[in-house]
Amino acid sequence: MSLNTIDVPASKPYRVMIGPGALDGLGGQAAALCPKAERVCVVSDDAVYPLHGEKAVSSLREAGLAAEAYVLPHGEASKNTDNLIALLNFLTERRFTRSDVLVALGGGVIGDLAGFAAAVYMRGVAYIQCPTTLLSAVDSSVGGKTAVDLPAGKNLMGAFWQPKCVLCDTDTLDTLPDDVFTDGCAEVIKTAILFDPSLFASLSIRGKGFDRADVIARCVRHKSDIVEKDEFDTGLRGLLNLGHTLGHAAELCSDYTLSHGRAVAIGTAVVSRAAARGGFCGHDLPEAVCAILTRFGLPTVTDIPIDRLMEPMLSDKKRSGGVVNVVVPERIGKCVLRPMDAGTLRKFMESGLKP
Amino acid sequence: MSLNTIDVPASKPYRVMIGPGALDGLGGQAAALCPKAERVCVVSDDAVYPLHGEKAVSSLREAGLAAEAYVLPHGEASKNTDNLIALLNFLTERRFTRSDVLVALGGGVIGDLAGFAAAVYMRGVAYIQCPTTLLSAVDSSVGGKTAVDLPAGKNLMGAFWQPKCVLCDTDTLDTLPDDVFTDGCAEVIKTAILFDPSLFASLSIRGKGFDRADVIARCVRHKSDIVEKDEFDTGLRGLLNLGHTLGHAAELCSDYTLSHGRAVAIGTAVVSRAAARGGFCGHDLPEAVCAILTRFGLPTVTDIPIDRLMEPMLSDKKRSGGVVNVVVPERIGKCVLRPMDAGTLRKFMESGLKP
Repeated sequence: MSLNTIDVPASKPYRVMIGPGALDGLGGQAAALCPKAERVCVVSDDAVYPLHGEKAVSSLREAGLAAEAYVLPHGEASKNTDNLIALLNFLTERRFTRSDVLVALGGGVIGDLAGFAAAVYMRGVAYIQCPTTLLSAVDSSVGGKTAVDLPAGKNLMGAFWQPKCVLCDTDTLDTLPDDVFTDGCAEVIKTAILFDPSLFASLSIRGKGFDRADVIARCVRHKSDIVEKDEFDTGLRGLLNLGHTLGHAAELCSDYTLSHGRAVAIGTAVVSRAAARGGFCGHDLPEAVCAILTRFGLPTVTDIPIDRLMEPMLSDKKRSGGVVNVVVPERIGKCVLRPMDAGTLRKFMESGLKP
Repeated sequence: MSLNTIDVPASKPYRVMIGPGALDGLGGQAAALCPKAERVCVVSDDAVYPLHGEKAVSSLREAGLAAEAYVLPHGEASKNTDNLIALLNFLTERRFTRSDVLVALGGGVIGDLAGFAAAVYMRGVAYIQCPTTLLSAVDSSVGGKTAVDLPAGKNLMGAFWQPKCVLCDTDTLDTLPDDVFTDGCAEVIKTAILFDPSLFASLSIRGKGFDRADVIARCVRHKSDIVEKDEFDTGLRGLLNLGHTLGHAAELCSDYTLSHGRAVAIGTAVVSRAAARGGFCGHDLPEAVCAILTRFGLPTVTDIPIDRLMEPMLSDKKRSGGVVNVVVPERIGKCVLRPMDAGTLRKFMESGLKP
């Protein structure tokens, strides 16, 4: 078994391992990285656990660890405080100690929720990320951002809490429904726009037939570079928010019927058009961005009116001192953070909303 | 205004300022330590806010900060997840950003809850501790432990999150009801047993008439030394749990009708007797400990049976790999951590429960 490995130089460094069969190494990794652990809680959802749960649990048991599963309904709606508290109560009832380990087996929702549970259970226990979607593989499983949603907005209750390691088994991507895989492609395209013109070009040509382990490793390396420079998201890391300011708002306005990846695709298209119309980049940029998004089956427009999008955009975590920092593309491979007050933000996004 | 100051060398160092009128400096400290802040939320309770809220809010407004108050019912029962989430929703609705600040104005409950809200709101914002009880002044306001309670036990959901500074206004102690002041004396006595024979001797002689600013500063210095060596509570810091293993269990079994300080007093008396009966120290130690606790009006016995206490003791956060680390006194100024399995713990505590 040959895995791509990337060492993330966070305050507590850890390794990301990517490739087919990576999940078979879960037990060995847990035992090696958490030598005092006796028990492991595999947190997953009812779409992922039936497919990959047995593999994870067997690997843990073979390594001599007592494994228990905690399975949530799948979907963004699960990433709430009720489920968080229920999980913490479960851990308490089963007498999990500060030496024990959580495993997040699933997509971004499971990774964020289980990671946050690990961050706060008894003031912090170890966890391992096992992303099973493209979106979580390239983005949310690396970097230590954990959170749950509040009624007022996404990810408003959270922590920076780095995993002990990330095991990305690319075999799990083969079981993804096409629309979930497509959703993850939005974050891959986002990464290419931010950092990697050659990846952008190759994706534009190859479409969804890209080499998964290779592209995931490339995206993780870009993310790792950013996390190294700005682990706690006080500046540069804000770049990863490309497409997310409007994207998060659209997700919320749709009551989460719009998926995260599609919302990010729309947000990326909107800021690209707005950037061109505002003179920050040429008009070829939004054309190329919309072309690649369309090629991947991702949307580039929304009919949610600017009036409804403004309120959640102004509640964005990235807001500071009356301004929202918006990621504005200047060319493929170069984006900048532009602080905008409410009036400027409204005009900017409104201009980008027009197709 | 002359204040005792102690610099706590945590991962993010901060200053503790102790003395009369310290609260008048709140606005200046907030503005200096959090230069990007525009808004401050003063979290307090309905016993403390009417007495000291105006002083805190005025000081903040004079420093040019917009101050809002969030006032909870007083008492341990408020330290729950519902109140935490309501506070986070309040901050979101009022558009608090990651640059803004929380102030914990109150005792341990407010400090723990507001500190934890600061730890998780938008993945972490700044906060300032303004302890108004003796207990929080000498113990919970320093060291960055924050938490709320879960139904299954105390402080099970929390984080290490250091304050920007701690302002301990000893004037606020003058407004404490006698039984609340007495409660705090249990943590002062605990500190003396752990680290400071001369403080123990002086408290034994002077009783509750001790010099407050001086004794608080002395206790904070001891705590600061421990936090420096073991900020994240992986070993040495466990010493601060003297009296707490059984104390926390007794609090829970009493449905929190037994206060924290009284529970710790009982827990300290129990382990002292158990230590003597187990041959870890002379019989003069429990005699001296019970004498000082009694002099301060604190209890030394409980009629909660060992059978009821065992379950919560085994859920203790300090448990690791099947054992509970119990703080056992060997002499005044010297305690050690002893790992005990369930059977040993039961026998040990049962022997100490007998008067």
